[in-house]
Amino acid sequence: MGAGLFISFEGVDGAGKTTQVNLLADYLRALGREVVVTREPGGTALGTQIRAMLLTTNPDEEISPRTEALLFAADRAQHVSEVIRPALERGAVVITDRYLDSSLAYQSGGRELTADDIRTLSMWATNNLLPARTYLLDIDPRASHTRLEHAEDRMESAGDDFQQRTRTAFLELAAVQPQRFCVIDAQQSVGEIAALICDDVANLLE
Amino acid sequence: MGAGLFISFEGVDGAGKTTQVNLLADYLRALGREVVVTREPGGTALGTQIRAMLLTTNPDEEISPRTEALLFAADRAQHVSEVIRPALERGAVVITDRYLDSSLAYQSGGRELTADDIRTLSMWATNNLLPARTYLLDIDPRASHTRLEHAEDRMESAGDDFQQRTRTAFLELAAVQPQRFCVIDAQQSVGEIAALICDDVANLLE
Repeated sequence: MGAGLFISFEGVDGAGKTTQVNLLADYLRALGREVVVTREPGGTALGTQIRAMLLTTNPDEEISPRTEALLFAADRAQHVSEVIRPALERGAVVITDRYLDSSLAYQSGGRELTADDIRTLSMWATNNLLPARTYLLDIDPRASHTRLEHAEDRMESAGDDFQQRTRTAFLELAAVQPQRFCVIDAQQSVGEIAALICDDVANLLE
Repeated sequence: MGAGLFISFEGVDGAGKTTQVNLLADYLRALGREVVVTREPGGTALGTQIRAMLLTTNPDEEISPRTEALLFAADRAQHVSEVIRPALERGAVVITDRYLDSSLAYQSGGRELTADDIRTLSMWATNNLLPARTYLLDIDPRASHTRLEHAEDRMESAGDDFQQRTRTAFLELAAVQPQRFCVIDAQQSVGEIAALICDDVANLLE
């Protein structure tokens, strides 16, 4: 897998992932590293089409939970084969805004499939590619609500209970994989959070 | 699962599946049965979108084998949950032009994934729904070529070797599941084939 480093950011909407992804990318570029910033769903052209299908609500057609899980897995499979693996193989740092833990938290924590189902699907889709580090920006959904001006899509409008269950699911995932996860209190200032993350990544790169 | 009956037709392109699907549907409707005729990929509105993604070749983006398998499985999951299961539950005969054996034959017989991978994925997608009977219209691809006027899409233009491997994969699937499969020599006349199939379905319905 070359000298690349694979990092994911996770957390509920409004936790500040995008800001921290960009600050970390700036930091690493200043160190002279090649950085690839990407996201799920939608990290490829095909993934963008898949994302559009998932976010479009058609009143005549309800997407079944299994269909949804398979579409997210298809997006992830393409993302890994087209973007992430090639970048890691040439030595880049890949930073993704959401990866398989989002599927575990949103699809199994929040909906009706089991976590084992979703994990098996994602591990197959990625041919077992996990991040070296996952930053979980943890925030009480009641606090994160004030950060979100709009709840535009199906995921974001699913309501408070759903967000609370999702937060809990993320924390449970982190608890069973403490070596991969770094849980960060997202109510700290942007600068404090960025400093924590940059220090940790600097250690990983040494 | 009510009093429904689930039937699939399989075989390489040009074997005459569509003709036989329609003749069987006419026969069953004449007997007073509700018949739902459907197809994969593309048996639902969402499936049609997925099919369009799979058949559109984008020179800048190669769909990975895992992505392709997951997209076919997503189509199948939606097809089962939206069309097939509801119809079976109300007692209809469901006839599908292609189902999971096509994935097994085309994706594992013809491409690089294992049959076990594809089977596991499809059984998960469908929550273990298999047809009561599968008619394999078997024909030498060299004979079927004369039936196809156009080779319009990616699957149909993949070449003779691919078609030969796919035919062999279908026959191997039938050999290990003789109770579900009925293999029919598709070089017989349309009327002879239809008579064989209608007799067999009449027995199944008794």
